[in-house]
Amino acid sequence: MNTTTIPKQEFTDRISKFQSNIKEAGLDACLVHATESDMANVRYLSEYWPTFEFAAIFVPSEGEAVLLVGPESDQYAAQRSVFTNIEKMIEYRESAEPECPGMNFESFKDIVAKYTPNGRIKKLGIVGWSVTTLPVYMALREQLPDVEIVKADKTFLPLRFIKSENELACMRRAYEISELAVEAIINEIKPGMTELQVIGIAQREIYKHGGEYEGHALYCFCGLSTNNAISRPTHNKIVENEIIQLNIGARVSGYSSSVGLPISIGPLPEHKRRLVDFGLEAHFKTMEMLEAGKPAGAVVKDYEAWVTSRGFEKYLLYGPCHSIGMMEVEQPWMESTSDYELQENMTFQVDTFFYDKDFGLRWENGIVIKKGGIEKLSSRFMKVIEI
Amino acid sequence: MNTTTIPKQEFTDRISKFQSNIKEAGLDACLVHATESDMANVRYLSEYWPTFEFAAIFVPSEGEAVLLVGPESDQYAAQRSVFTNIEKMIEYRESAEPECPGMNFESFKDIVAKYTPNGRIKKLGIVGWSVTTLPVYMALREQLPDVEIVKADKTFLPLRFIKSENELACMRRAYEISELAVEAIINEIKPGMTELQVIGIAQREIYKHGGEYEGHALYCFCGLSTNNAISRPTHNKIVENEIIQLNIGARVSGYSSSVGLPISIGPLPEHKRRLVDFGLEAHFKTMEMLEAGKPAGAVVKDYEAWVTSRGFEKYLLYGPCHSIGMMEVEQPWMESTSDYELQENMTFQVDTFFYDKDFGLRWENGIVIKKGGIEKLSSRFMKVIEI
Repeated sequence: MNTTTIPKQEFTDRISKFQSNIKEAGLDACLVHATESDMANVRYLSEYWPTFEFAAIFVPSEGEAVLLVGPESDQYAAQRSVFTNIEKMIEYRESAEPECPGMNFESFKDIVAKYTPNGRIKKLGIVGWSVTTLPVYMALREQLPDVEIVKADKTFLPLRFIKSENELACMRRAYEISELAVEAIINEIKPGMTELQVIGIAQREIYKHGGEYEGHALYCFCGLSTNNAISRPTHNKIVENEIIQLNIGARVSGYSSSVGLPISIGPLPEHKRRLVDFGLEAHFKTMEMLEAGKPAGAVVKDYEAWVTSRGFEKYLLYGPCHSIGMMEVEQPWMESTSDYELQENMTFQVDTFFYDKDFGLRWENGIVIKKGGIEKLSSRFMKVIEI
Repeated sequence: MNTTTIPKQEFTDRISKFQSNIKEAGLDACLVHATESDMANVRYLSEYWPTFEFAAIFVPSEGEAVLLVGPESDQYAAQRSVFTNIEKMIEYRESAEPECPGMNFESFKDIVAKYTPNGRIKKLGIVGWSVTTLPVYMALREQLPDVEIVKADKTFLPLRFIKSENELACMRRAYEISELAVEAIINEIKPGMTELQVIGIAQREIYKHGGEYEGHALYCFCGLSTNNAISRPTHNKIVENEIIQLNIGARVSGYSSSVGLPISIGPLPEHKRRLVDFGLEAHFKTMEMLEAGKPAGAVVKDYEAWVTSRGFEKYLLYGPCHSIGMMEVEQPWMESTSDYELQENMTFQVDTFFYDKDFGLRWENGIVIKKGGIEKLSSRFMKVIEI
C-alpha cells in the first residue's frame, strides 16, 4: 500500500513562510478557515481535516500558531493534526448549533491574548474569506471591536501555487488511483446500471488502492446532463450509443486528482462523435501550449483563437485549464484576464469542455508545468473509447 | 431498485408554509443558504444540491421564490431543481473565486427588484446563518445598505422537525441500505485491512443498493481513535481483539441515516467488553424513554441519572439523541437545556457514546417518535458482534 504523506517538517516550513508573508503585508495575524467540503487552507498548515464541525488556524506574525476546532473535535484534532496548540471555540460548532451546556470555550479575545507577543492586534487578515461564516465574523466584530479585518487570501494562497516534491508524489499517486478506478468502470459498466451505481465502482476502487476519499464529487452522466458544466450523478440509467461522461478523482493525503473522458457503449451518432474527436484534439493542443515562462492569459487567448480557427467556438463554454492541488479547482485560475506566468511545478487540470444544446463532453487530465513542456500526471485515457 | 423520492407538490407546500412563517415573523423575505457539504436548507425547498459552488433561495413573503446559483451551475440547476426561476450570481461562485470575464450576473438589488411585490424590502431574514459566507454578507451590505438583516433560522428549521410520510419512506430506505453496508463489512473485514479500505466496502454497497451518497463522512476506527467524538478514518490497520467502531450511513433523496456499532475480530479485553455491554444496555434504555409528549430535556436528565445510578457517569461525554433528517445531525438538539416536547414523526438518532482515555464506543440507530413509543428505523445491529 502506497500511502504517500507530507512530512511534519514541511508543515513547519509552510507556517514559517506564511508568517513572513503576514509580516510583509503589514498584518498582525491571520485567521485561516476551512469547512468539511473546503478543507484545503487548514489542512495545508496542519494536516487537520474537519468533519461535521468547522475549523480555523490563528497564525500570529510571530510566535506559535493555534488550531481552533469545534466542541467535539479536540481529541480528533490532537491525534490527527501536527499541532499541539488546540483550542475549542463555539463559533466552529456544527451547523445544527448545539448549545453545549456545561462546556467552556475560548473567545477570539482569549486567543489573541494567549497567542500574540503583545496580547493584542490591530489588523487581522482572513484567509479562506469565501468559506468564512457569519458566526465567526460576528464574534470577531463583537470580541475585537477595534481590530481592522481584511481579506488576506493573497498572503497565503500563493504558498500553494508551486508544489513540492512531496506534494507531487501525493498527486501522482492520486491520479494513478483515479486511472485504476476508470479502468474498473470501463470493464464493468453495462446498459441499465444507474449513473450512481457506476460511481459505486469508482468509490470501491479509490479506497481499495489507498485513496482516503474522493477528490471531488464524482461524475458519471449519461445523455442530456453531459452538457452541464457542473452536475451530480442521478438514478438515470446508462444507455447504449450515448455519451457517458466520467470524471473520477481520488484523494491522497489531501491532494485531489481527476481523470475525465467521454465513453460510449456502442458507436455514437456522427455529430456527437465529431465533437468528442475534436475535444480530444483540443485537449492535446492545450498540452502543447503549456510550459514554464508562458503567460497564463496567453494560453487562454491562443486556445480560444485555435478553437475559433477550427470553427468550434460556439461549442466552447470555458477552458482550457485550472489549477489543481488540495482542491480539485484552486487558484490560480487560467482565464483571459490572468496576469501571471506559468512556473515550474505549478499543477493544472487540463479541462477541455465542449457542449451543444443536448449533450456535452469533457476531457480532463492533470499536468505539472516544467521547463520546455509538461509532465503528465495522467495519460492512460486520452483516447476515444467505444465499448 | 427502490429510488424513493419527494413529489414536486411537497416542495410547493414547503414554500407556502415557509412564506406564512416569513409573514408571521414580520420579514419581507428570507435568503436561505447551502454549501456542498451542508445542502439541507436549499435542498429541502428545491431538490437542488450544489457541488463546487454555493447556492441560495430567495423567498419573498409573497410571490415566487428564486434559486440563486454560481456561474457554472445554471444548466444543472434547471435540470435538477423543481424551480423554474433560476438566477446566476458571482457571490455563489466556488471558493477558488474565478473572475469569469465576459459573464453577466444579477445583484441582490436586482433580485429584490424582480422577485418582490414592491421591488423593495426593509427586513431580510438569513436562514442557514451558520453556513452563510462573507462574500454574500458583504454584497448584501453594499447592495442593500438600508435593509435590516437578521438571523432567521427559527422561521424555517421547524418545518423540517416533523417528517412527512414521503420523508419517512426515504429515511427507512436509507437505513436499510446502511444495514446492508454494515452486513457486508462484517462479512469481509479482515485484520491487516486499513480503516479506509473498510470504508470502501460500505461505499460500494451504498451505491449498489440505490443510495445517492454517504449520509455523513463514514467512520471506521480501530484502537485509540475510537475515543474521538468526531474523527475520520485513516490508513491504520485493523487488528484483532480491539474495538472497531463502525458508523455507516447511506443517503436517499437527500435523507441521511447512520448505523453505529462497535465490533471486534476475536474477543475484547474484559474492561472494553464491559463498556461495550453497558453501552448497549444504555442504548436500549434510551429507546424506552422516548415517546410523543415527553419533554426533550427530561429525556436527557433521566438518561444521565440512570447512567449515574449505574456508576458509569465518568465515561459519558454527551447523549443520548440528536435529530436526524437531511443532515445526519440537525435541529432540534436533545440537550439538558431543550425546552420542547417530543412530537409524533420527529426523527432522532439514538447516539450512545461512552469513552475512556484510550478507547471508546458508540451505538447508533434511528427512530421515529410515535404515540406511546417509537418506530425503529434500524435494529439489525443492536447486538454485540465478535467475529
